Amino acid sequence: MENFVFNNTTKIIFGKGTETQVGDELKSYRKVLLHYGQGSIKKYGLYDRVVKSLQEAGIEWVELGGARPNPVISLIRMGIQMCREENIQAILAVGGGSVIDSAKTIAAGTFYQGDAWDFFDKGIEPPKKTLPVGVILTIAAAGSESSDGAVITNEEGMLKRPCSNPLPYPKFAILNPELTYTLPAYQTACGIADIMAHIMERYFTTTQNVDITDRLSEAALRTLITFGPRAITNPSDYEARAEIMWTGAIAHNGLLDTGRKSDWGSHNIEHEIGGIYDVTHGAGLAVVFPAWMKYVYKEDKNRFIQFAVRVWDVDYAFGDPERIALEGIERIKAFFKSLGLPVCLRDMNVPDDRLEEMAEKGTRKGPLGNFKKLYKADMLNILRLCV
Amino acid sequence: MENFVFNNTTKIIFGKGTETQVGDELKSYRKVLLHYGQGSIKKYGLYDRVVKSLQEAGIEWVELGGARPNPVISLIRMGIQMCREENIQAILAVGGGSVIDSAKTIAAGTFYQGDAWDFFDKGIEPPKKTLPVGVILTIAAAGSESSDGAVITNEEGMLKRPCSNPLPYPKFAILNPELTYTLPAYQTACGIADIMAHIMERYFTTTQNVDITDRLSEAALRTLITFGPRAITNPSDYEARAEIMWTGAIAHNGLLDTGRKSDWGSHNIEHEIGGIYDVTHGAGLAVVFPAWMKYVYKEDKNRFIQFAVRVWDVDYAFGDPERIALEGIERIKAFFKSLGLPVCLRDMNVPDDRLEEMAEKGTRKGPLGNFKKLYKADMLNILRLCV
Repeated sequence: MENFVFNNTTKIIFGKGTETQVGDELKSYRKVLLHYGQGSIKKYGLYDRVVKSLQEAGIEWVELGGARPNPVISLIRMGIQMCREENIQAILAVGGGSVIDSAKTIAAGTFYQGDAWDFFDKGIEPPKKTLPVGVILTIAAAGSESSDGAVITNEEGMLKRPCSNPLPYPKFAILNPELTYTLPAYQTACGIADIMAHIMERYFTTTQNVDITDRLSEAALRTLITFGPRAITNPSDYEARAEIMWTGAIAHNGLLDTGRKSDWGSHNIEHEIGGIYDVTHGAGLAVVFPAWMKYVYKEDKNRFIQFAVRVWDVDYAFGDPERIALEGIERIKAFFKSLGLPVCLRDMNVPDDRLEEMAEKGTRKGPLGNFKKLYKADMLNILRLCV
Repeated sequence: MENFVFNNTTKIIFGKGTETQVGDELKSYRKVLLHYGQGSIKKYGLYDRVVKSLQEAGIEWVELGGARPNPVISLIRMGIQMCREENIQAILAVGGGSVIDSAKTIAAGTFYQGDAWDFFDKGIEPPKKTLPVGVILTIAAAGSESSDGAVITNEEGMLKRPCSNPLPYPKFAILNPELTYTLPAYQTACGIADIMAHIMERYFTTTQNVDITDRLSEAALRTLITFGPRAITNPSDYEARAEIMWTGAIAHNGLLDTGRKSDWGSHNIEHEIGGIYDVTHGAGLAVVFPAWMKYVYKEDKNRFIQFAVRVWDVDYAFGDPERIALEGIERIKAFFKSLGLPVCLRDMNVPDDRLEEMAEKGTRKGPLGNFKKLYKADMLNILRLCV
């Protein structure tokens, strides 16, 4: 086990009807930026409940809608300007990972003299002083609601990049599983794939002897395997939605990489696809992750055997352990498919004529991942396995 | 799943040599109270390293040693007086649960006009303003290093009571598994039993459908079952000590009761034993918990079957599920015994002539537990099963 620091300060407020507490959580701020996405929050009454709660708490707000999947730096720049001009004291992000990532970047960018894209492109550390961010989550997927990370896309150059330094943890995150009832099956499935990928990026580590973290990760994966299909079959199954939503936060709050090095190769490969094509992140991961697994499993076969046996209940075959490792990979691929997710680039209408460009952009700053260091040729091989 | 709030703010600093960071963590305070126990920290050089780190950071300190297992209110009153007279700005607890519980109570009591025993006896809420508490942990057991709880004993009346309202979470907790190498096997075993009990008090719940929390709990229990015996066989096995130490913090940091009602019947029963006899908490729990299980398992046999199958790998017998539930209870009893722990009161030199008194004191304020409400007669029955 490696030395580590774990300090996740986000207050999780979980359960039915909890979005009405938002005014109370924000009451020490006079004026907030209400940030959201494409307007689905207005369609199902959430917007009205949020606004009512803010009004009752005597909080003023200005609105910035329009965040879209793969959130863009141009909208963030607009948000930063609004926060400065309007003397905003806190940001309320109502939505999924894109809105939250956008809000975190605005929160830090408001106190940064340069362009907030520097945090992503140049590795410049965001200022310690930021606006506080509160969250009302509407999809279980990104885990951004209780993480210090964000992924932003720059439309110039089609670059999708994670922030390499910590952004602020949300001060609070309101997680009401009921808010996810209206998600289409495909979005639900993409969210589940994203959550599973967050766990697996940490699970496939080169660090030996971190059994508690392994077992917690396996627990989280098994919960998703049990409840994912239930949420897709019955979108209003509260228990299934609740299991997925809480697991989604745990998957990305830092607990599951305590004591170990994580990988992030698959995420980075997916970012190159998502930077060019409008692919839902979770769908992209469902295609990339099994391909990555097939490409790298020989680096540490035992870890893939453990994954197959402990997560997927594959019987251990003493005579042929290799088959067990491969069976685990087949199982997750089949699971993604059963959720209605794509299994190859074609399924997402991504052509195969820009793979070389992706591999070049993805590895421009050095190899990806840790489980196996992926150079340009490796990334291209993995992308070809995705076709 | 029930609605919940989870907000654990303790910064965990985990790993080899981390105690030398303590000065840095405390550097914003001019003067601290250095609180410890019976002096074992001086025996193995830890005291010297801590003092050196404080000196290098330019921090003054005054010392309060002498906290003992089942920490007493009289020493706490002394600590509160010291903090007031010496204008202490923070408390550094170096030790195990007793020292940390004592430190938290001093931290809150310093800003409370009345007697700090009120927090435990009268259910009075500790003040929101407290001194910050930092921790260097020397035994994996109580989980107090990242919890907002404490258990204190009042020598007058031999009352051992938990605080019914939140005390401050430690601001930081330094967890170096190497510091536990010198623990005798018996103390190590008691710590493991205490950690397992913390998990099981939450696991045996009446709340249905909290699968993620169940699975995380099972993960933590399995880690202890694997690594407990290793740490006892080889006290300097870093990996085993690390697994146990991190699991000990997770067991009690609030994660494993998210979404559910917990029980705490067994802890409260043990408190009555520990209030009268100088019994190590974990040893008392190793005796009480299996007896409690036998007494209550019929309330929800399926939960005990799940425990047997998922934690202890007991084969499910379709014809005789009851036997599976009981087998799980036998397995944990055998496990505690294999660690060298007592299995009955006699093993701890606790006579059986004050059981009635314990049952009366324990249930004076109402029944204990949630899985099954335990009235005086129930508690007496369980204590008799412990004989």
